[in-house]
Amino acid sequence: MRTYRALFDAHVERWSNGLPAGDLHAPMAYLLALPAKRVRPVLTLMACELFGGDPRTALDQALAIELFHNFTLMHDDIMDAAPLRRGQPTVHARWNVNTAILSGDAMLVMAYTALGPDPNVLAVFNRHALEVCAGQQLDMDFEQRDDVGLSEYKEMIRMKTAVLLAAALRIGAIRAGAGEADQERIAGFGEGVGLAFQLRDDLLDAFGDPAVTGKEQGGDLRNGKKTWLLIRGLEVEREHGSSVLREQLAMDASERDVATMITALRELGVEQEAQAEVERLAGTALDQLHLIDPNGDRTAALRALAVSLIERAA
Amino acid sequence: MRTYRALFDAHVERWSNGLPAGDLHAPMAYLLALPAKRVRPVLTLMACELFGGDPRTALDQALAIELFHNFTLMHDDIMDAAPLRRGQPTVHARWNVNTAILSGDAMLVMAYTALGPDPNVLAVFNRHALEVCAGQQLDMDFEQRDDVGLSEYKEMIRMKTAVLLAAALRIGAIRAGAGEADQERIAGFGEGVGLAFQLRDDLLDAFGDPAVTGKEQGGDLRNGKKTWLLIRGLEVEREHGSSVLREQLAMDASERDVATMITALRELGVEQEAQAEVERLAGTALDQLHLIDPNGDRTAALRALAVSLIERAA
Repeated sequence: MRTYRALFDAHVERWSNGLPAGDLHAPMAYLLALPAKRVRPVLTLMACELFGGDPRTALDQALAIELFHNFTLMHDDIMDAAPLRRGQPTVHARWNVNTAILSGDAMLVMAYTALGPDPNVLAVFNRHALEVCAGQQLDMDFEQRDDVGLSEYKEMIRMKTAVLLAAALRIGAIRAGAGEADQERIAGFGEGVGLAFQLRDDLLDAFGDPAVTGKEQGGDLRNGKKTWLLIRGLEVEREHGSSVLREQLAMDASERDVATMITALRELGVEQEAQAEVERLAGTALDQLHLIDPNGDRTAALRALAVSLIERAA
Repeated sequence: MRTYRALFDAHVERWSNGLPAGDLHAPMAYLLALPAKRVRPVLTLMACELFGGDPRTALDQALAIELFHNFTLMHDDIMDAAPLRRGQPTVHARWNVNTAILSGDAMLVMAYTALGPDPNVLAVFNRHALEVCAGQQLDMDFEQRDDVGLSEYKEMIRMKTAVLLAAALRIGAIRAGAGEADQERIAGFGEGVGLAFQLRDDLLDAFGDPAVTGKEQGGDLRNGKKTWLLIRGLEVEREHGSSVLREQLAMDASERDVATMITALRELGVEQEAQAEVERLAGTALDQLHLIDPNGDRTAALRALAVSLIERAA
C-alpha cells in the first residue's frame, strides 16, 4: 500500500510540476496538493498488480482517475457553495467561480489525455464519468424533494461515489489484461466498498466522535440532509406511528435538537440497521475478492484497504 | 453543403431524442435545438468526403465536435453572465448556474463518448480542447489588463475560436485516412478561416449594419472590449500622438461616444487595415486548399463555405 502510494505521489508530483503557469492550471496543482488519501489511484495500481500487470503501466490511468475525481470536487464545491475543502479554501473561494469552472473543465480534458486511447478503458471511464454527473444531479434533485426513498438514495450514492471506485479497479484490471469475469468481480468489489464507505460516512455524522471526525456531530441531521439514516428513520417512524424526526425536520435548522434526533435514530433501531447494512455490503464486496483469489494471498492489501475504509472512525 | 447539413441535423436529432429525461440532459437538447449554423460538424463531414471517405463514417466525430462546442457555450455563458444565446435564455438563466455547470460537464463526457477511441482523433481533440480552455482563460485575463498586444490577442482568438475549426476539419480528414501533410493543410485552412472569421466579427461590431447584425453598433467599443480594432487603434494613436480612443476609454462606459470612436478607428486607417488582414488570412487559408486540390473541383463547397463565413454581413 505504501509503495503504491509513493509510486503514485511521485507521478502526480511530476505531472503538477510540468503544468504551465497561470490561472488555468494553478488551481489543479493547488487542489492536488491538499492532503488526500488517494484511494482511487491506489486501487487502480493494486488491481493492475493483482491481475499480473506491472503497476507502473497503470500510472497514467491512475492519474486520469485522480484528475477526474478532483475535477468533480472543484465543480461540486461551486455547486455546494462550500468554502473549505480538506481544511483549506476551495478553488472558487481562493480564486473565483469562473476560474473554478474553467480550470475544472480543463482538468477533465487532461484526465482524458492521461487516460489514453485504449477502447476498453475509455468505455469504462466514459460510462462511469457520466454516472458520476448523473449522481450529482440526483443529489441536487433530492434537496428539493421530501419523498426520497431508500432505494433512490442508494442509487444516488452508487452513481456519485461507488462507481468511480469500481472504475478505478476495473481500469487497473484492464491494463493487466484481466478477463471480463475478473473485471466484473473487481468492479463489484469496488462498488460494494464504495456503498459501504458512504453509508459509514452517514453513520459517522450522527454517531461518530466529533473529536475524531473533526466535524460537528449530527451536522447532516441539523441541515435536514437526506442521508440513509434520516430516510430510513422517517420510514420506521411512520411504521411505528411516532414522529420525533418528522417534528424536528418541520422546525428551522437553527431550532432543531440534534441530540434528540440522534437518540430517536438509535431508539428506532436505525443505527443498528445501518451498521448491519455496512457489514452486509462489505461482506458482499469481500466475497468478490474471494472469487478472484480463494487463498487470499494476492488480495491481502486490497482487503486491508477496504476494511480500513469501511471501519474508519473519521 | 445542404446535404451535409441535413445529414448532420438528422444525426443530432436522433441523439437528442435518445436523451433521458431530467435536468442533467434537458439543457443539452435545449441548447442544441437553438438555431445555429453548425459550421464545425459540417466541416468535419466535408473534410472526410474531400479525402475520399464516406461522410456518414464521420457523423459521430462531427457530433462530438458540436457537443464540445455547445459545452463551451454553456459554460462560457455562465462566465460571461450572458442572459441570451441566439435570442433565447441561456441555460443558466433558464435553469440555474449549478445545472449549467453540471449539464456542461456531462456534455463534455458525452462528446468524448461520441468521439470514439481512434488514437489520432483523440490526440487532436485533446490538444485542441485544452487550447480552447486556455483561450477562454486568456480572454478573461485580458479583461483585467490594459496592455494587451496584437499578437497576444491573435493567439487568444486562435486558441478560443480557430483551433476548433482546425480540429473539426482534421478529424474529418483522419476519418478518411488522409496523410499527415494533407491533415496539416486542411487544419491550416481551418485555422486561417477561424482567425479571419473572428476578425470579421470584430469589424462587424464597429462597421456592420445594426439592421443586419441585430446588435448595437459598437457594443464592444462601448464596453471597452479589447478587440483587434481597439488594440490596433490604440497602437496607431500612440504612433500618431493622438488620443481620441484613449480619452473615450478613460470615461465610464455610459458616457462613451461610440460614433466618435468609430470615426477615429476609420480615420486612423484601422478599419482598412483590419479588412486587409481578413483578406490576407483568408488568402493564406485558401492557399492551403489549393495545395490539396489544385483544380479546385473537390473543394468548391469548402471554399464557398469559407467565403460565406469571412464575407458575411451578420
